[in-house]
Amino acid sequence: MQQYIQENKERFLSELLDLLRIPSVSADSKYKDDVRKAAEFICEKIQAAGADVAEICETAGHPIVYGEKIIDSSLPTVLVYGHYDVQPADPLNLWDSPPFEPVVKDEKIYARGACDDKGQVYMHIKAFETMMATNSLPCNVKFMIEGEEEVGSDNLGIFVKANKAKLAADVILISDTAIIANDIPSIDVGLRGLSYLEVEITGANRDLHSGVYGGAVANPINVLSKMIASLHDENGHITIPNFYDDVVELTPAQREAMAETPFNLDEYKKDLGIDDVRGEDGYTTLERASIRPTLDANGIWGGYIGEGAKTVLPSKASAKISMRLVPNQQSDKITALFTKHFESIAPAGVTVKVQPHHGGEPYVTPTDSKEYRAAEKAMEEAFGKKPVPTRGGGSIPIVALFEKELGLKTILMGFGLDSDAIHSPNEHYGLSNFYKGIETIPLFFKYYSV
Amino acid sequence: MQQYIQENKERFLSELLDLLRIPSVSADSKYKDDVRKAAEFICEKIQAAGADVAEICETAGHPIVYGEKIIDSSLPTVLVYGHYDVQPADPLNLWDSPPFEPVVKDEKIYARGACDDKGQVYMHIKAFETMMATNSLPCNVKFMIEGEEEVGSDNLGIFVKANKAKLAADVILISDTAIIANDIPSIDVGLRGLSYLEVEITGANRDLHSGVYGGAVANPINVLSKMIASLHDENGHITIPNFYDDVVELTPAQREAMAETPFNLDEYKKDLGIDDVRGEDGYTTLERASIRPTLDANGIWGGYIGEGAKTVLPSKASAKISMRLVPNQQSDKITALFTKHFESIAPAGVTVKVQPHHGGEPYVTPTDSKEYRAAEKAMEEAFGKKPVPTRGGGSIPIVALFEKELGLKTILMGFGLDSDAIHSPNEHYGLSNFYKGIETIPLFFKYYSV
Repeated sequence: MQQYIQENKERFLSELLDLLRIPSVSADSKYKDDVRKAAEFICEKIQAAGADVAEICETAGHPIVYGEKIIDSSLPTVLVYGHYDVQPADPLNLWDSPPFEPVVKDEKIYARGACDDKGQVYMHIKAFETMMATNSLPCNVKFMIEGEEEVGSDNLGIFVKANKAKLAADVILISDTAIIANDIPSIDVGLRGLSYLEVEITGANRDLHSGVYGGAVANPINVLSKMIASLHDENGHITIPNFYDDVVELTPAQREAMAETPFNLDEYKKDLGIDDVRGEDGYTTLERASIRPTLDANGIWGGYIGEGAKTVLPSKASAKISMRLVPNQQSDKITALFTKHFESIAPAGVTVKVQPHHGGEPYVTPTDSKEYRAAEKAMEEAFGKKPVPTRGGGSIPIVALFEKELGLKTILMGFGLDSDAIHSPNEHYGLSNFYKGIETIPLFFKYYSV
Repeated sequence: MQQYIQENKERFLSELLDLLRIPSVSADSKYKDDVRKAAEFICEKIQAAGADVAEICETAGHPIVYGEKIIDSSLPTVLVYGHYDVQPADPLNLWDSPPFEPVVKDEKIYARGACDDKGQVYMHIKAFETMMATNSLPCNVKFMIEGEEEVGSDNLGIFVKANKAKLAADVILISDTAIIANDIPSIDVGLRGLSYLEVEITGANRDLHSGVYGGAVANPINVLSKMIASLHDENGHITIPNFYDDVVELTPAQREAMAETPFNLDEYKKDLGIDDVRGEDGYTTLERASIRPTLDANGIWGGYIGEGAKTVLPSKASAKISMRLVPNQQSDKITALFTKHFESIAPAGVTVKVQPHHGGEPYVTPTDSKEYRAAEKAMEEAFGKKPVPTRGGGSIPIVALFEKELGLKTILMGFGLDSDAIHSPNEHYGLSNFYKGIETIPLFFKYYSV
């Protein structure tokens, strides 16, 4: 198997680069056709790798690629999930090379989606090809690769509910997370949930001259700023009533265990170029970024943002705001709490509109399960080191849904690094990580099928 | 004279429409050539109207048009100031007709600059033409029409300092303000000053994934919101230390006089489509918009502002912030106070950059002067009603500079209406206001020369 990977590694890479050249940005409708191109590419490669079934399933939005190889229905089935859509690439001016013209530099692949999640999805397709080519596939495998993960997976939820028999499996395997470092393997055993909304504040029915009306009429930008500012208190706690009601606090023992995760605050600050971290009082940086819920404005705009100066009192100001959730917070409930609170704090003189974008539920994987131990053994063999169980800060909304609808647990065996700049300019993925993944995945299949 | 205006009114209008077709947006460098076109247009028309001198004066930025007609050096000289540049037209989608394709609808001219200030400048050129054509110019006249009023008039300041002899005059006449209503003439006797800055908050050295870093690293949008919010207290007072030190409070008598200015709060709210006004406690709406200093964010931007959702923790967030000043606040001093304060309130984990854009000083015209009484008589004759002296909220930064450099008082005899939507989509100017101005200006010349 190692030999097959060695002999084909150049081709594996060049195929991935072809996939990365497709700008499959799901959030922006002008890339609709490119998103489909990426789906077709994935479908062909699953087929070519040796699947019995490889098909493009239409949805109300971007299509889902489904594939399967059933060698013996009495054997277990691994359902591989991933996504071929990517985040928008802007701000473009901050990329050292065009986001959809991948380049390999310093042993890393630079492109939007290199790590999140095209690079990691492609490891699975090539691992599958490798197992097929070497007659070493030990169990059944199914693929479900979607194109709307970056915009909330709404249609995947519908697809899963409608295709429970087709998707029947024993475990779900996902590579869309990170390891601590290339010499410190880890497995994500927890994910934060998400509630994402857009808010719009409207003052006067038109933009006004700030000299003629300034001081006498509510300014939507000033009002929005005050409203956003009020969502955190001076200790970094979120002020939305009942926001923390369902949060499961870790036990002192769990926090102690977490504190042993390798982490260097100085390197962390140095990497980000900041003089200090900032977050909720009473928690460490690792805790703030994983086991605590958060509220961040992801975008804000209003008034004149062009060159030079314009003395305008704008009619509207808007922001995109998201909250990361932890067990047992519920996305819908938090969205409702936010909406009620945000509307309630709008002062006279303005109207407020709150529009939910998408959400996802938090998730935790038990470390004493057969599937976790299989992943642990696979990584230990590939990295020569037992992986550390970690709690990730990101969200893969679909994971909680899989458990609810399919009754399946998920193994988050990711191979990225937090420094891969996913969702940022110059996103990249290490060549060694890509190949390490292709090598580790068949080991998971092996130990899981024992 | 009336007859000449009547006979030529159609031509006067069509010439103005030609001027309005030139997109002379001074703030945006891509309109540089159009700004010059507008200057050339103005220059030709002053020449054609009968000036001895009409020339384009180069500056480090957009040119200044100078013109003069000296009939007798022993007679007084009126220096007419105005600007041919206009505000940016965006948001374009809110215009009912293209901003630079003027249309006349319901007796109003719709176009960017229709009122501010092309329409009002053009009244002066046509009034001059009328006086020349009817041999009724009673004194000397000079024109100084600039192209950078909307971006701070920096080069006009330099031009004035360098050309004091050339600009020697007895009074400055400007039409760039509004009357209370078409049946309630008024003369602006006070202007607010301005201090305009741009601020930028930088957190991490790159955009980050809000799941991986959210809650652990300062979010520039949240920080900027908190900083902007903190600039006003719960009573609407500005919190910048020493901000109010130099403010001249009106006497109770002056405030009573002001309270007699015709003003209908319900109509005001109805026109703006707001359920309530909002401003500094202890002051009326008219006072908030004229005799009190203000602080408004004119623009804000940061993070993802495209379609859909992006879970990004942005590296930067920015805002344009301006303060309207009243006698005797000084723009430079306020700019320095703002900068010092804003830098001081930046929390750890971010860096703040404050860049001053431009400023202007507040101004007051004495109502017992020869020039004011001449303007009063001219308006009373044209409108059949004595004009009300008012304090305007806007800024014409150059007015204070004229007094300082040329030792001249300025008469602000404007003919617009606050409802003309200057600086906003669908800016317009009443045809009757345009013609009323052309009729009134010669009367000012007459009474001022007596």
